Amino acid sequence: MIMEIKPYRHEVKYYECDRMGITHHSNYIRFMEEARVDWMDQLGFGFDRMEAEGVVSPVVAVDCRYRQPSTFKDVIEIVPMVDESTALKLIISYTMTVAGRIICTGTSTHCFMENGRPVSLEARFPEFYAKMMECTENK
Amino acid sequence: MIMEIKPYRHEVKYYECDRMGITHHSNYIRFMEEARVDWMDQLGFGFDRMEAEGVVSPVVAVDCRYRQPSTFKDVIEIVPMVDESTALKLIISYTMTVAGRIICTGTSTHCFMENGRPVSLEARFPEFYAKMMECTENK
Amino acid sequence: MIMEIKPYRHEVKYYECDRMGITHHSNYIRFMEEARVDWMDQLGFGFDRMEAEGVVSPVVAVDCRYRQPSTFKDVIEIVPMVDESTALKLIISYTMTVAGRIICTGTSTHCFMENGRPVSLEARFPEFYAKMMECTENK
Amino acid sequence: MIMEIKPYRHEVKYYECDRMGITHHSNYIRFMEEARVDWMDQLGFGFDRMEAEGVVSPVVAVDCRYRQPSTFKDVIEIVPMVDESTALKLIISYTMTVAGRIICTGTSTHCFMENGRPVSLEARFPEFYAKMMECTENK
Repeated sequence: MIMEIKPYRHEVKYYECDRMGITHHSNYIRFMEEARVDWMDQLGFGFDRMEAEGVVSPVVAVDCRYRQPSTFKDVIEIVPMVDESTALKLIISYTMTVAGRIICTGTSTHCFMENGRPVSLEARFPEFYAKMMECTENK
Repeated sequence: MIMEIKPYRHEVKYYECDRMGITHHSNYIRFMEEARVDWMDQLGFGFDRMEAEGVVSPVVAVDCRYRQPSTFKDVIEIVPMVDESTALKLIISYTMTVAGRIICTGTSTHCFMENGRPVSLEARFPEFYAKMMECTENK
Repeated sequence: MIMEIKPYRHEVKYYECDRMGITHHSNYIRFMEEARVDWMDQLGFGFDRMEAEGVVSPVVAVDCRYRQPSTFKDVIEIVPMVDESTALKLIISYTMTVAGRIICTGTSTHCFMENGRPVSLEARFPEFYAKMMECTENK
Repeated sequence: MIMEIKPYRHEVKYYECDRMGITHHSNYIRFMEEARVDWMDQLGFGFDRMEAEGVVSPVVAVDCRYRQPSTFKDVIEIVPMVDESTALKLIISYTMTVAGRIICTGTSTHCFMENGRPVSLEARFPEFYAKMMECTENK
């Protein structure tokens, strides 16, 4: 049975908008992190649990493509998906919509480290990895 | 000889301004921290050195009074001073000016902790304390 | 009939925590703004409606007293109340709790401007003013 | 004569560091903006002048590759360059170093709009465009 993942919702705050009256572009990188945290919680494997197990997951790269602006009080729905997964690297993609219209897409790339050495997510947490891999675009 | 403390300068960033085109009020609390860090460095006793000695200094309270707005590219000069000092509490005041005109004043209140217990700054770091006390409004 | 105001809830984000692992103190000023926006919406008189009517409401002062730290994933409940109200000034108080325990209290002070001149909230928006005044600590 | 562009310097602030003790990855997007503003000022054509001429320059995309962490008090030197320039699009690359070691690289992509319509930077501001094009990696 494929689990149901709920989109993450972020309502744009007053202080997140800039002089042009729109959400400052840097904030989307933060929204992506919020959505990733929520997604991992829904998959039953939160940041905190991973940290408690001694594994940290630095962000190696991000990119973001801004399609439409958003503004104060807009509710952005964010859907994370596995974009690519190799032995030592995980790329997550994010689709961000307001009222069903895509405003922004992005990706974040992660590696996983334990005691200062790279670790394979699949080998280290096979159950979580399997669940996560259900969230791919072409399942 | 009284040491010369240079005012801290913060140039307002684009992303620090809000929809009204002015510096968002929450950012002044951050500018006060920046000025405090710089001031302690100038006094020869930086955050990092204090942390290395095992003393942490939580912020207990802040207040801020906004007199004039500032905006993108304004250079804010900030002068920290000792406002009040007791055995276990230090209150620092901040005067923030743009082109010589006061735009904001504030204070931050700190205590000092070592191994989870309050510690007297004067007893623990007498030399630093003496230097710091030269930066009072009524010296 | 007195209207029921729901506390505002803010879940602490990863990027809101600092090197000490706790919510950076500057962020509480932002949480207070979030709670104020939500409160005004619940009172039926949002920021946007006030702006549409040509009235802006600058923050004149803030203060914040930090009692206990909060951290990543803590859900902070914030209850705004009218602390004081005069012809030209409104002071809102905020009580912030995590799991029923007070972690932070604060206030924000506001004036109201129309066409660059101070305006009395009570005279300009009597209905909203009346509703707001029901949210006082000693009603 | 080719003009001398000075690298932009950003000293990492306490509040820019996260629970892992390193600069939160979202902040580099802001540092890139700071460097871009400074670079345009050095080229004699600041954001404010462009806005005054009625041209706005939305960010269309960003990407960032994190190579080494930075932390509190690190001074990041940022060198912006023209990465690619077409009729309607400008890509700026950023090299960020601490003490001469590359910690992060990124790009930002921009278009230029006047009265809601795309405008060619080269046609609209030929002098600025020429100066800017001197800052390319293969000049």
